[in-house]
Amino acid sequence: MTCSDPSSAPEPGEYEPPSESGPRPGPVGDDATARACLTAVADPGDTAMGALLDEHGAAAVWQALRDGETPQPPPGARPDTVARRAARWRDRAARIDPDALLATTAELGSRLIVPGDPGWPTQLDQLGRRRPYALWVRGAHDLRHACLRSVAVVGARAASAYGTHVAGELAWGLGQRSWAVVSGGAYGIDSAAHRGTLAAAASAVAVLACGLDLSYPRGNEALFADIAARGALVSEHPPGTPPSKHGFLVRNRIIAALTPGTVVVEAGLRSGALNTARHGQDLHRTVMAVPGPVTSALSAGCHRLLRDGAAVCVTGTDDVVEQVGRIGADLRSEEGGTALDRDSLDATARRVLDAVPDRACAGTASVAEAADLGLDAALSSLGLLAAAGFVERGPSGWRTTTGRGPGRG
Amino acid sequence: MTCSDPSSAPEPGEYEPPSESGPRPGPVGDDATARACLTAVADPGDTAMGALLDEHGAAAVWQALRDGETPQPPPGARPDTVARRAARWRDRAARIDPDALLATTAELGSRLIVPGDPGWPTQLDQLGRRRPYALWVRGAHDLRHACLRSVAVVGARAASAYGTHVAGELAWGLGQRSWAVVSGGAYGIDSAAHRGTLAAAASAVAVLACGLDLSYPRGNEALFADIAARGALVSEHPPGTPPSKHGFLVRNRIIAALTPGTVVVEAGLRSGALNTARHGQDLHRTVMAVPGPVTSALSAGCHRLLRDGAAVCVTGTDDVVEQVGRIGADLRSEEGGTALDRDSLDATARRVLDAVPDRACAGTASVAEAADLGLDAALSSLGLLAAAGFVERGPSGWRTTTGRGPGRG
Repeated sequence: MTCSDPSSAPEPGEYEPPSESGPRPGPVGDDATARACLTAVADPGDTAMGALLDEHGAAAVWQALRDGETPQPPPGARPDTVARRAARWRDRAARIDPDALLATTAELGSRLIVPGDPGWPTQLDQLGRRRPYALWVRGAHDLRHACLRSVAVVGARAASAYGTHVAGELAWGLGQRSWAVVSGGAYGIDSAAHRGTLAAAASAVAVLACGLDLSYPRGNEALFADIAARGALVSEHPPGTPPSKHGFLVRNRIIAALTPGTVVVEAGLRSGALNTARHGQDLHRTVMAVPGPVTSALSAGCHRLLRDGAAVCVTGTDDVVEQVGRIGADLRSEEGGTALDRDSLDATARRVLDAVPDRACAGTASVAEAADLGLDAALSSLGLLAAAGFVERGPSGWRTTTGRGPGRG
Repeated sequence: MTCSDPSSAPEPGEYEPPSESGPRPGPVGDDATARACLTAVADPGDTAMGALLDEHGAAAVWQALRDGETPQPPPGARPDTVARRAARWRDRAARIDPDALLATTAELGSRLIVPGDPGWPTQLDQLGRRRPYALWVRGAHDLRHACLRSVAVVGARAASAYGTHVAGELAWGLGQRSWAVVSGGAYGIDSAAHRGTLAAAASAVAVLACGLDLSYPRGNEALFADIAARGALVSEHPPGTPPSKHGFLVRNRIIAALTPGTVVVEAGLRSGALNTARHGQDLHRTVMAVPGPVTSALSAGCHRLLRDGAAVCVTGTDDVVEQVGRIGADLRSEEGGTALDRDSLDATARRVLDAVPDRACAGTASVAEAADLGLDAALSSLGLLAAAGFVERGPSGWRTTTGRGPGRG
């Protein structure tokens, strides 16, 4: 088949606009498997593949490649580009064992999420045709909910003691206020940010540029294990994919897209962190930079962002929260406390919040039961409550953020 | 008399818009003497006095006060305010010996300049009713011309080694490009800026908050002597005035108004340098801030300016010149050199430039003669050439800025 007729690829999960919550509108097993395989076939962020997925759906594209065919180029795509790439994709597709790929995924303790899944971070959809085909996730955290209230903290690998100190303090402070911190798992600023987040017992999210079975850099293996246990490791690459220069650059778009704001802590003039910042700008997210000594080449990238008006100057947690926080929910009120915020919740959200235990963790089903709501309605409210900082998802379920909720910290 | 009739105070130098150059249109001795005396009578920057001077002229206001009268409040001024202040002014006026004041001025090797003088920095006129009544100047430098191409470099007294290092380097780099540097003569950033300027053999201008016969702070006496010899010491206070808190604050408006741009190098959240920056903003001048470690309280003021968008981030001479330089004259051209700039000069300016010696210094009269121009025309062109960085006024006359002109450095 050539996929010239979109109706021949009726993937229910594919053409639906990503729903806020709720069950998937039908079986998407084929779609998810196809997407898993396609991550092993096409380079990540390939707009030609993105256009084909938009046009035909993943299952039809995958089937065409497996059948040795070239999917019909969608309107606007260059047929010669699609044909050239499809030749490479077909070669790769022929060597893939879908069952083995999914089995490996499960063996690694990871899971696959695809657009349309309730856990899919719909903020990634703003990447358009550069949206990841699928994401592998290791860790119990609900990636979508964690990242609704998150900040990316990124910077130089060869960071200074100043930079790692500031990154750690910043991430810790954000974690104290129940903000998840997303970074890239590299040495230097990234590692300091992850460690600060974990120290605050908050959600650490590392977006890796290799398969989740590989620890890169090697020295961060223990850190990655901690993040998987208490946060989430994320990759758009199938297991077994080694890191590559291209992989690092395209990875940065995911870090920028997952979060409402990116903080560059320390970056030379050619740092990959500036690439993340530019993705943030392109996506109209808040881009922030931490200044440093003008005598340090490691701060030159931050200063250029500030000079060009491409980033806001932030010096600590307060500044960052002021930039990315939602007014009323995150700015410290004159009186302190969260009474006003709680009052502003709708009746359902308040019922759900009351159903979430203060100290222990409760699964979504038990919260739904306690609130006398359906699973979908409860999950939807929990998502909002998490985004507003009232609850968070721990390793064994939902809990309130007592003492670390909005307006305190 | 009560000065109710402005025509009774025909001060020719007073009501003329400040001319670009040329001789004063008539004798202004009375006006200058009156202004000298008024600096000893009214607090600097007093808008009630400023309004009276605008309305009646200095000689008439002075005469009224000496006669024990209250000058007629101008429209818009509050009569009770004027009456209350005039009582104080009259007391002080009665104790002043104008001849002695002028004699002291000369003995100190200083001179008085007043609005309307060819050397008056007309950029101060933007202060409106807060314009200094007069300025005392020590040093051979032409204050007006020096400050047309100048930058204020200000900051904390209790600066860090980082701050003084950056201030010194910045001032030196600006001096290398023939930019004058204006500061406040204080310890810390100010002193470092002055020293950097002097090291580059460029024009150092210190605006003091006390009479020029007093060295404050005492430890900068030698520095002030160097500035007087190779730049200019400036004050709006008559000889003998001790420094005061109010004096420091109002002094800052002069620093901001003299220069096209102010750079804050290091400043705590309550630093006087932020006061200078605010004056710069009010006057629509370029305000710049040098970032530093976020862990340093001495950079917190700079970071707040950056965060609030009140200042542009600058990290060195290049950044500053890019902000305050005139496009074409100050930005380094691709090819280097100044050929284009020189070509863009008008015929008169080119004649004057050719008449200025390359190594030695020449007085205005000899330049005018060599260029076959009148004194006023020559002075006017020299001012433009100085502002564009082609010539500078040294201790013994004009010289070209060979090797340090625009587009080089």
